[in-house]
Amino acid sequence: MDMHAFFHPQHIAVIGASANPAKIGHSVLSNLIQAGYEGAIYPVNPKETQILGHPVTHNIADLPRGLDMAVLTVPRDPVLPAVRQLAELGTKAVVIITAGFKEVGREGFHMEQEIKEIAEENDIALLGPNCLGLINSGAGVNVTFAAGAPASGNVAFFSQSGALCQAILDWAVGENMGFSKFVSLGNKAVINESHMLDYLGDDPDTDVVLGYIENVSRGQEFLRKARAMSRKKPVLMIKSGTSTSGAKAASSHTGAIAGSDQAYEAAFQQSGIIRVRDIASLFTLAQAFSCQPLPQGPNLAVVTNSGGPGIMTADACERSKLHMARLSQETIEGMQEFLPSFASLHNPVDIIGDADAERYRLTSEAVLRDQNVNALLILLTPTATVVSQLDQVAENIIHLANQSEKPVFVCLMGKHSIAAAQQKLVQAGIPCYNFPEPVIQSLEAMYSYQQWRNRPEEHVEEIRTDRERAEEIVNGFRSRLSPGRSVEIVEYQAQELLRAYDLPAAATSIATTSAEAAQAAEKIGYPVVLKVASPDISHKSDVGGVRVNLESPEQVKQAFLEITSQAKYHEPQAYIHGCLIQEMAPGGMREIIVGFNRDDQFGPLLMFGLGGIHVEVLKDISFKLAPISRSQAADMIRSIKSYMLLKGIRGETGVKIRAIEDILVRVSQLATDFPDIVEADLNPVLVNDERAIVADVRLTLHMPHT
Amino acid sequence: MDMHAFFHPQHIAVIGASANPAKIGHSVLSNLIQAGYEGAIYPVNPKETQILGHPVTHNIADLPRGLDMAVLTVPRDPVLPAVRQLAELGTKAVVIITAGFKEVGREGFHMEQEIKEIAEENDIALLGPNCLGLINSGAGVNVTFAAGAPASGNVAFFSQSGALCQAILDWAVGENMGFSKFVSLGNKAVINESHMLDYLGDDPDTDVVLGYIENVSRGQEFLRKARAMSRKKPVLMIKSGTSTSGAKAASSHTGAIAGSDQAYEAAFQQSGIIRVRDIASLFTLAQAFSCQPLPQGPNLAVVTNSGGPGIMTADACERSKLHMARLSQETIEGMQEFLPSFASLHNPVDIIGDADAERYRLTSEAVLRDQNVNALLILLTPTATVVSQLDQVAENIIHLANQSEKPVFVCLMGKHSIAAAQQKLVQAGIPCYNFPEPVIQSLEAMYSYQQWRNRPEEHVEEIRTDRERAEEIVNGFRSRLSPGRSVEIVEYQAQELLRAYDLPAAATSIATTSAEAAQAAEKIGYPVVLKVASPDISHKSDVGGVRVNLESPEQVKQAFLEITSQAKYHEPQAYIHGCLIQEMAPGGMREIIVGFNRDDQFGPLLMFGLGGIHVEVLKDISFKLAPISRSQAADMIRSIKSYMLLKGIRGETGVKIRAIEDILVRVSQLATDFPDIVEADLNPVLVNDERAIVADVRLTLHMPHT
Repeated sequence: MDMHAFFHPQHIAVIGASANPAKIGHSVLSNLIQAGYEGAIYPVNPKETQILGHPVTHNIADLPRGLDMAVLTVPRDPVLPAVRQLAELGTKAVVIITAGFKEVGREGFHMEQEIKEIAEENDIALLGPNCLGLINSGAGVNVTFAAGAPASGNVAFFSQSGALCQAILDWAVGENMGFSKFVSLGNKAVINESHMLDYLGDDPDTDVVLGYIENVSRGQEFLRKARAMSRKKPVLMIKSGTSTSGAKAASSHTGAIAGSDQAYEAAFQQSGIIRVRDIASLFTLAQAFSCQPLPQGPNLAVVTNSGGPGIMTADACERSKLHMARLSQETIEGMQEFLPSFASLHNPVDIIGDADAERYRLTSEAVLRDQNVNALLILLTPTATVVSQLDQVAENIIHLANQSEKPVFVCLMGKHSIAAAQQKLVQAGIPCYNFPEPVIQSLEAMYSYQQWRNRPEEHVEEIRTDRERAEEIVNGFRSRLSPGRSVEIVEYQAQELLRAYDLPAAATSIATTSAEAAQAAEKIGYPVVLKVASPDISHKSDVGGVRVNLESPEQVKQAFLEITSQAKYHEPQAYIHGCLIQEMAPGGMREIIVGFNRDDQFGPLLMFGLGGIHVEVLKDISFKLAPISRSQAADMIRSIKSYMLLKGIRGETGVKIRAIEDILVRVSQLATDFPDIVEADLNPVLVNDERAIVADVRLTLHMPHT
Repeated sequence: MDMHAFFHPQHIAVIGASANPAKIGHSVLSNLIQAGYEGAIYPVNPKETQILGHPVTHNIADLPRGLDMAVLTVPRDPVLPAVRQLAELGTKAVVIITAGFKEVGREGFHMEQEIKEIAEENDIALLGPNCLGLINSGAGVNVTFAAGAPASGNVAFFSQSGALCQAILDWAVGENMGFSKFVSLGNKAVINESHMLDYLGDDPDTDVVLGYIENVSRGQEFLRKARAMSRKKPVLMIKSGTSTSGAKAASSHTGAIAGSDQAYEAAFQQSGIIRVRDIASLFTLAQAFSCQPLPQGPNLAVVTNSGGPGIMTADACERSKLHMARLSQETIEGMQEFLPSFASLHNPVDIIGDADAERYRLTSEAVLRDQNVNALLILLTPTATVVSQLDQVAENIIHLANQSEKPVFVCLMGKHSIAAAQQKLVQAGIPCYNFPEPVIQSLEAMYSYQQWRNRPEEHVEEIRTDRERAEEIVNGFRSRLSPGRSVEIVEYQAQELLRAYDLPAAATSIATTSAEAAQAAEKIGYPVVLKVASPDISHKSDVGGVRVNLESPEQVKQAFLEITSQAKYHEPQAYIHGCLIQEMAPGGMREIIVGFNRDDQFGPLLMFGLGGIHVEVLKDISFKLAPISRSQAADMIRSIKSYMLLKGIRGETGVKIRAIEDILVRVSQLATDFPDIVEADLNPVLVNDERAIVADVRLTLHMPHT
């Protein structure tokens, strides 16, 4: 697929070009001309001879072979035959603005499918259908039907919602914000977010990538591209449809089937994408990322001419990952030489209400030089003294920021009297806000991104397992399953499967007679647990089918007889195989839960939490997409709120964290190796300072429809 | 104190008025004249004869008696004598703009104290010192030195930070936002936030009150005023200095000693004040509250011409307290008659991209009429179709909103092409934003406020207690305490004190011989716990001083001898009184913790949480300021995250919630009755489905410095 032709076409045909200014086919052509496009333009229209000064081609068949791009603005039904013709002509990129495809129902869905197949067969870079088009400012390309074109800039934007594209273009024109590339993805029949990440990662005109998506087309591919991409450039993304009602709206809208939000959250986190919740934040952050260096640490210094706003900044800082920098003695002593005695020399540095441009300059320079400072915020209230010197203040800040490798932010508190200075700063690439909180929000995101970039790449080690034995067990179940059906693998076989992955399943034997049971118990070691073994009985305790803490052969034998007869009595129809004899975990072990389910888009989503109320009531659970490395497993364990309980509080001995890591990476491997195990629940897993035991496990095997 | 003279002065003297435009004394006079003030103006200056057309008085002594207001802009040292003179002249209100008082050190602090005393003796309404002044738009009063005056409006603003006043005035001028009253409180020597709440609550020109505070001057008075006020009008407030570094900055700034943030949080919640975290939100909410009716329920309907923004709104809605309204069948069927077939008739109602003004009108009317809808958001992307009809769309919305008792909000997605329509809507009192999230934020706050207003007033019932017995116990300790010292009341006496408040202390006796111990055990009933009774041993277990689960007189006697001799062996210097014999709580009871400490500003802050890790590790604690009613006690219990554990999950029996409520209201009463008990820790309290037992308790008595 020729993405270069897509973004830098040498020739563009506008099929459906119109002389009527009310038509989309007119807007597209007119936008293209106004963008200063220098390549060849071919309006296609069966009736006209010339539109907007360009000679018209009457039929698609008359277009030259091997065109770089064709844009379709015709009604829906002619779209499919047109794509076919364009494919025959060897057109490299096709943009389908026309709507009425999979987003409106069955017929449209099938047409879109055919279009997609033609494009894929012919390796066409196809955008849409149901989109606004695209803009590449650097190449003078604007094949959208939007009113108003944005300035050129170093930020790229792509969106699954065409309406949002329109709104954001309108907003960008009003705010004088520029874009390098601007792409409306529409229904994503071919080109999707992964192609964008791939291309924009190497685009020299783009420093920051913004995206709005409602779903992801190919989860695993997206993860791979995003991971590679996010180490090169920051990617800020909104994923909507997180709510139940939102997801309902999403699926009625572009026919997107929203994946679970937890899986998206994990996918973004594991691939370094910065997730943003609202559009205002998207642009606040974009401004910061696009023009300032990343902070090398969390320590922010604030220089202010007023106390109140300084306090509010410190408050916001404390609610974030950032810290208020502790200034060095040297810096403090240096400032004493030029600051008045009422000034506060500690961060926030309050240079008080009569501060002028010169005092701002001296203080800012001193503070930014301090080795304990990773970022500087200059906070200014337009007092009578400083308001007449704002131009000088701005000059000085621009000079300072240009010479520094640390990020510099400005907050000019107000609106009316600071407008000119604000504009000057923003034009010079200094992020400038009216209140302090967006500064903290931006810097926090930049610091998190910097941490992500500094983190070594994750290496998932292949774990040695008895894959053969595992396949054998699973095959036993597969053979009995018809397509579309599921079965649970429980107890003995599930534990066998875990053992094939070196997972610490509780030692278990099966016995068909009381003598065998006693023998097995001797081997396992007392005390033991006995459970009825029957494929027909799932709630064992309800039929008196469980006995714990058995201490001798006599107790085991008697329990065997009682359990099997009780079970027979309660469930006369059940096939009773005998009893399971299981080691009994020592008292005082902590309960944890490990499991996974399978997300449609992203595959196995691992889950970890503490037993008891922590998972069910407090929802204190961590998630990651498999496969995970050992350090990611450690992250999962550390990131639950009740982690302190595992580590040990108030002098208590903690549990063996490494044993939990082992379980997580092995379960991750199992989930990756067996795509048809769709759910696993190791619950509870018991753990103390010596080891972990999987006390119970339940796996669900699902045979897909071919 | 004559607050009417303060806000509506008939005559104003500006002391320190200057002919030099660079001086504050010039700015104040000039602002007053420009505001169109119609009362008498007396500039005071020793040298000039006329300033800005007004004849000058040379000495304060020459001013008329009984002036309504004098504003001081002189240097610091002449301020105190000036206030003295003004007091002698019977001046009703004094505004001290001059800085250099308690915010800068000892000398200033004492001067401010004297000023405060003079004002209080003479009942002068004194503002400042160290402030920007005040504005009353309706009375043509502007005695600030700020550049630029805001328009008139129905929102009042007061602030402890003068710089913030300046910033916000500048911002308001730029945004064309109006204020009814605008007051810079400065150091709050006399007039503070409580006076503001009191006056503004009845001010007919004010519908919404905004405040910025760093601390509260008189906690209990503030609570009372705020509670009365917030039922009349919404009060939105920023309390800064929440962080450690923020609080440090706050105390170096206006000399404020910040109370604990939990106490403020409780104070705001219990008095119905809406706490806001940042200035941008303060104005977003102010706009909404000041011009739209409150929603009568949480159900929001959205009408949109684009899917993506509709989904984002539903997402934001789900993250809030609001719900997406479920439209009635009647509404849906009604809309089918005029909406195209691709439209989505369920909320968010998507009237699709080619919607025009008329389709917006019909749909909005139908949806707003629906009984399941409490509020309407009209969401509009500037598509080609609708962009030329925006003026009509705005007209229709204004008409609709004016006729409805439900709040109507508008979100015009974009900036450039929607600017005119946005201005029209805002001027007509329709809150209009560019992105959906601020709408949700505003409506959520309005809905919460509506819930607060609908809640019956809390009635704290006086609880019958044996106050006399309690006094007797406490007096025993008081007599031994010197001022400024503290003592702990523990064990036996603490439990006696609880019993005087009918709190369920564990049955306890004290015995000095083993025979007495056995007798006491018989009376309490087996099993019992024995603990060493010694004022000198606080960690009883460390010296072998605790034995549990004693089942017979023999065991009790033996335990008595062992405990006392062990204690003597480990702590030869300790005075051993004997042993405590205590009832032993049955197994399986849940541990909870109840306590209080005393906030400098707000008094006793009650605390409730579950034992174990819930309080210490998970910080799952609820707070309220005493005294509390029974329904507030119930609120405290319900508002912890682990409440489900008390209520019972998975078929478990819950605990007796009413028994916990009893404890909370009684501890509340105890905290209120004994101001010198500065801390209480009932930990653990054991509770099951039948009753609660206070197993251990520790009270701290503090003798204040006279």
